[in-house]
Amino acid sequence: MMKIGIVGGTGYTGAELLRLLATHPEADVQVITSRSENGKAVSELYPGLRGKMDIAFTEPDDEVLSRCDLVFFATPNGIAMQSVPALLDKGVKVIDLAADFRLSNPADWKQWYGVDHACPELLDEAVYGLPEMNREAIRQARLVANPGCYPTATQLGLLPLVRNDLVEGHVIVDAKSGVSGAGRGAKVASLMCEVSESFKAYGVAGHRHLPEIRQGLSRMSARFNGELVFVPHLTPMIRGIHATTYATVKDRSVDVQGLFEETFANEPFVDVMPAGSLPETRSVKACNQCRIAVYRPQGGDTVVILSVIDNLVKGAAGQAIQNMNIMFGLDEKAGLDVSAMMP
Amino acid sequence: MMKIGIVGGTGYTGAELLRLLATHPEADVQVITSRSENGKAVSELYPGLRGKMDIAFTEPDDEVLSRCDLVFFATPNGIAMQSVPALLDKGVKVIDLAADFRLSNPADWKQWYGVDHACPELLDEAVYGLPEMNREAIRQARLVANPGCYPTATQLGLLPLVRNDLVEGHVIVDAKSGVSGAGRGAKVASLMCEVSESFKAYGVAGHRHLPEIRQGLSRMSARFNGELVFVPHLTPMIRGIHATTYATVKDRSVDVQGLFEETFANEPFVDVMPAGSLPETRSVKACNQCRIAVYRPQGGDTVVILSVIDNLVKGAAGQAIQNMNIMFGLDEKAGLDVSAMMP
Amino acid sequence: MMKIGIVGGTGYTGAELLRLLATHPEADVQVITSRSENGKAVSELYPGLRGKMDIAFTEPDDEVLSRCDLVFFATPNGIAMQSVPALLDKGVKVIDLAADFRLSNPADWKQWYGVDHACPELLDEAVYGLPEMNREAIRQARLVANPGCYPTATQLGLLPLVRNDLVEGHVIVDAKSGVSGAGRGAKVASLMCEVSESFKAYGVAGHRHLPEIRQGLSRMSARFNGELVFVPHLTPMIRGIHATTYATVKDRSVDVQGLFEETFANEPFVDVMPAGSLPETRSVKACNQCRIAVYRPQGGDTVVILSVIDNLVKGAAGQAIQNMNIMFGLDEKAGLDVSAMMP
Amino acid sequence: MMKIGIVGGTGYTGAELLRLLATHPEADVQVITSRSENGKAVSELYPGLRGKMDIAFTEPDDEVLSRCDLVFFATPNGIAMQSVPALLDKGVKVIDLAADFRLSNPADWKQWYGVDHACPELLDEAVYGLPEMNREAIRQARLVANPGCYPTATQLGLLPLVRNDLVEGHVIVDAKSGVSGAGRGAKVASLMCEVSESFKAYGVAGHRHLPEIRQGLSRMSARFNGELVFVPHLTPMIRGIHATTYATVKDRSVDVQGLFEETFANEPFVDVMPAGSLPETRSVKACNQCRIAVYRPQGGDTVVILSVIDNLVKGAAGQAIQNMNIMFGLDEKAGLDVSAMMP
Repeated sequence: MMKIGIVGGTGYTGAELLRLLATHPEADVQVITSRSENGKAVSELYPGLRGKMDIAFTEPDDEVLSRCDLVFFATPNGIAMQSVPALLDKGVKVIDLAADFRLSNPADWKQWYGVDHACPELLDEAVYGLPEMNREAIRQARLVANPGCYPTATQLGLLPLVRNDLVEGHVIVDAKSGVSGAGRGAKVASLMCEVSESFKAYGVAGHRHLPEIRQGLSRMSARFNGELVFVPHLTPMIRGIHATTYATVKDRSVDVQGLFEETFANEPFVDVMPAGSLPETRSVKACNQCRIAVYRPQGGDTVVILSVIDNLVKGAAGQAIQNMNIMFGLDEKAGLDVSAMMP
Repeated sequence: MMKIGIVGGTGYTGAELLRLLATHPEADVQVITSRSENGKAVSELYPGLRGKMDIAFTEPDDEVLSRCDLVFFATPNGIAMQSVPALLDKGVKVIDLAADFRLSNPADWKQWYGVDHACPELLDEAVYGLPEMNREAIRQARLVANPGCYPTATQLGLLPLVRNDLVEGHVIVDAKSGVSGAGRGAKVASLMCEVSESFKAYGVAGHRHLPEIRQGLSRMSARFNGELVFVPHLTPMIRGIHATTYATVKDRSVDVQGLFEETFANEPFVDVMPAGSLPETRSVKACNQCRIAVYRPQGGDTVVILSVIDNLVKGAAGQAIQNMNIMFGLDEKAGLDVSAMMP
Repeated sequence: MMKIGIVGGTGYTGAELLRLLATHPEADVQVITSRSENGKAVSELYPGLRGKMDIAFTEPDDEVLSRCDLVFFATPNGIAMQSVPALLDKGVKVIDLAADFRLSNPADWKQWYGVDHACPELLDEAVYGLPEMNREAIRQARLVANPGCYPTATQLGLLPLVRNDLVEGHVIVDAKSGVSGAGRGAKVASLMCEVSESFKAYGVAGHRHLPEIRQGLSRMSARFNGELVFVPHLTPMIRGIHATTYATVKDRSVDVQGLFEETFANEPFVDVMPAGSLPETRSVKACNQCRIAVYRPQGGDTVVILSVIDNLVKGAAGQAIQNMNIMFGLDEKAGLDVSAMMP
Repeated sequence: MMKIGIVGGTGYTGAELLRLLATHPEADVQVITSRSENGKAVSELYPGLRGKMDIAFTEPDDEVLSRCDLVFFATPNGIAMQSVPALLDKGVKVIDLAADFRLSNPADWKQWYGVDHACPELLDEAVYGLPEMNREAIRQARLVANPGCYPTATQLGLLPLVRNDLVEGHVIVDAKSGVSGAGRGAKVASLMCEVSESFKAYGVAGHRHLPEIRQGLSRMSARFNGELVFVPHLTPMIRGIHATTYATVKDRSVDVQGLFEETFANEPFVDVMPAGSLPETRSVKACNQCRIAVYRPQGGDTVVILSVIDNLVKGAAGQAIQNMNIMFGLDEKAGLDVSAMMP
């Protein structure tokens, strides 16, 4: 069994790691840290884990963490970069679920996250953990930057078109997320009475996932022009992301449906649905799948891509475990081969 | 007091007409028809009206309806057109909340609604009841076609740009609606277990509100090129529409915020919010307001318009009463001057 | 117009006072205080009030408040009692929506709220503002203690039985509340991700509304034995309280339905529904009504009373305005004569 | 691998069987019947099963079903009893998830379900499938009647007290269920706009689960007096049952917490929480657990039992699989050893 550590396990991403790892055949969570909940059993905070995960939160301790094979960071942005270099030095592999290692340019990090990067020398080494783009690099990686939730849904939806240089003009990404994406922090803006039975956009002027998506698309094709409008919306549900992406194709004769099916034919966690499908976020609830449908309305030159994921699974903890499986040579689906919860 | 009739009052639009008319100072609902609920008190179906609206559903009867000053049709599409000519002949004014008189071209009606129009000769006379575009015509009208919910939110959001010929290329409307837009029909697809805690697009290949929006934009400016992509989405909430509209402006120097504020300065039911605002659908819940915010992200040439309405009020019953007020020379705000319900 | 002040207007109760007073024909809100939001327009915090209530929050100032005819306290428990004596001295009437003046015994206050009462000498004078029990006393009152939300629903449901000494043994109150009852505080326990799609009991060992209900029942009849089990539950909805009350009747021959109808025959805000009805909380959403149905299942000696209110209206702000109307000799229904919002 | 058939698989119970059986190590679903969806792939109806369960609905065919080792009936009440005798004759074991075999007295069946029972001779043989009461009988059974959802939560909560004859007087069960309990039928009463953001009681005069619970309690102790008031409520969430049960204990000196812990010490799917706990329905979402907390408020003689289950899992499909595991000598937890989904 692999020895697993989790730093910062009190948030929803940490809880989802625990839920998924509890049934993973090869992983044993040995340590989970939290300064605020130090000493409390994880099942006290998350009663759904009673009897499944009988460990308690502890203070972060580098000595203890360094005995793990792999450490997940499920911390707020800017924390992991303080501790990762020392862990790597001791031979521990790391998957960071925050943003610390997602942007390869330290200037971009400073612009969007407001502080200098603590270990810019690692940014080149860190592998962006989107297996559908970088599987081979992940296999060799010591340090994986787990993608953001919106970027996962968006990049998977655009990959077939951008990689093949089929897009011209700007791309519009109108994305909708459930409220768990805002985390478990005690904020008025996340109260049920504030967000239930309402819908709104946010981050219209500029959201931190914009540079991450733009970087990803540029890596798919050097010819991508970088023009991207990204508008996220808060949706009155707990889990789920639905990205509706609008791109203008250079050539109306392309068989878009066929192209998508071919691109993802061998991907265990990307499901291109039959033409005419309407993917619902609940069709991926609690599972690691991304489901995609693609349209060209009225035969025009606008392609509409609908892609859905569970933001806490394929958008966070599930994808992190998928990356772990790849890094350690396990079956990529280990611990993740379950169906969506419906209804 | 004006004598009011409602045909087809068992759905959500009919119920909302009843709720709003119950406190209208000049309107007296004298008849409400329903074949299926004939004889039942409206307060039995809608206990929230107990003590406020003490009439019962009756079979439709042209003789009875012809004694009204105004008849609202809150029927499924294709019903009103069967009865409207006879009522107009008897001097009754009509507001149709369905689609029967929205498209002025009978061929468009047939293409999108699947049957021949029963009274194409009335299509030219029918006034499209969006007061912010057609107030004077509504004042003179015998027959008003109350706009669809999506078209109301979308057209109000695009009016300042399109009327001034500031848009080039295609317009993208990514719209989100609460579930009440699907009506009170007993359909599996509207069950709580099917739509709560999930989000999905629908009608991507072509939705009936597309030709209505296109016709409206063409009337704002003969130079509008008609290129429009419209993707509606089903949102897990009861009420509310949020339209996120993306348009490319010809000229980046335009003061978009100022243009919007000026356009709607005297409109009682359109609220242009301060720059940087993020309108929530709950800020218009149960009231007739449309709230709009406008952005030009990263200073690019894409303008993003966020417009919200309550689909049952400004998107249906409230706008119908606003039209009634205009048609009968009443204060346009009569019965509609209330605040949104928050939380 | 009456000059109204509101102390502590940033919570949901304060917001609901603003929403309702915005359309009250005789009330003019002249001052609303908040230390944390001092200087901010109320419509910035509550965009649903844009154009309806154009005042800003100010620091609490006794001088300013003393110029009001009536001051509502919508503050946390224990605040009003600090300021009320001075206001009363200056001839200002006060309605406290918190618990400060609900319990007439200062020892009870200390036991359940943990601090000494700041003005125990006022507890006898303060009138418990449940109009259906105390209308005449409210008419004469300088100081009204607005009842809690659970106590309102529970006492109205038990009034006919207890007043007539028909109950024996203990009473069981199984009450369910929407999440707005927990207020607008930034607490993890009120996050949408914590409370949506889940249901739980709380306060089983002892809830502050227990002594309030017990005191109320004892006032209805000196013979009430005080045996009461009260279990509140948190329900995944924003507004609404449903109290299910179980009482053993001494005499099975009583016409319970008739007794309830007779008791509330002249009450404008209590609606005894026909036998066999199942009151839904949405049938009172956004309105000041209490709806009640009563059963004696299988003809046994247990009476089951179902009573519903909107916790923010009849359970807080609406009942406060009803009390205001009574105190100032206005039509008791002024500003409150609206229908429930359905759906 | 065991060969499994499912009759009537289009409802939520059938879908949950499919979701759970898809990961069961010993079960192979070979046939699933539906007259209405004959020929359609199950993954078309439930896209969450795409890639996990690649079979299609077929017309019911006794010949095909008789080749199974076990057939689950997930049909409406009154269907299974038509087909079960023939299947048993052919050596097929049966678990009925409907009510057909739950009441051992055919007169009770007729009274509560309105028709004569088709095979009253099987009622004595049928084993009531609550493993915590009947594990040994289930092990030997050919025919298991899977308990109702409310009866499961209620009986598990009352088992320690009733079995030990600690209850006197009547028992009150105030139960709350998510909307999935009403099934996937196209009914107005189950529409999101009808049930979301509202709460109501139903079946107060008499619900079909009342005789089932009464029968169960009578089997726990011949001295149970049968006095039971059962009031179910509809809660605005998809999954979950919370039963709040009030019982008067004969003897206040009993260590209720200890009694509950001891009773269920070896039960894999019943979790007695520490004293003072407040079980949430989400703590059992998507898993087969029942969690229970027990209180004696203010040291009185009323015991309050809080028990929660997922109505589709421990209240239906999960318990059916637990019964299957017992009937076939498998590990009782096979296919069911997962954590709850939180949030």
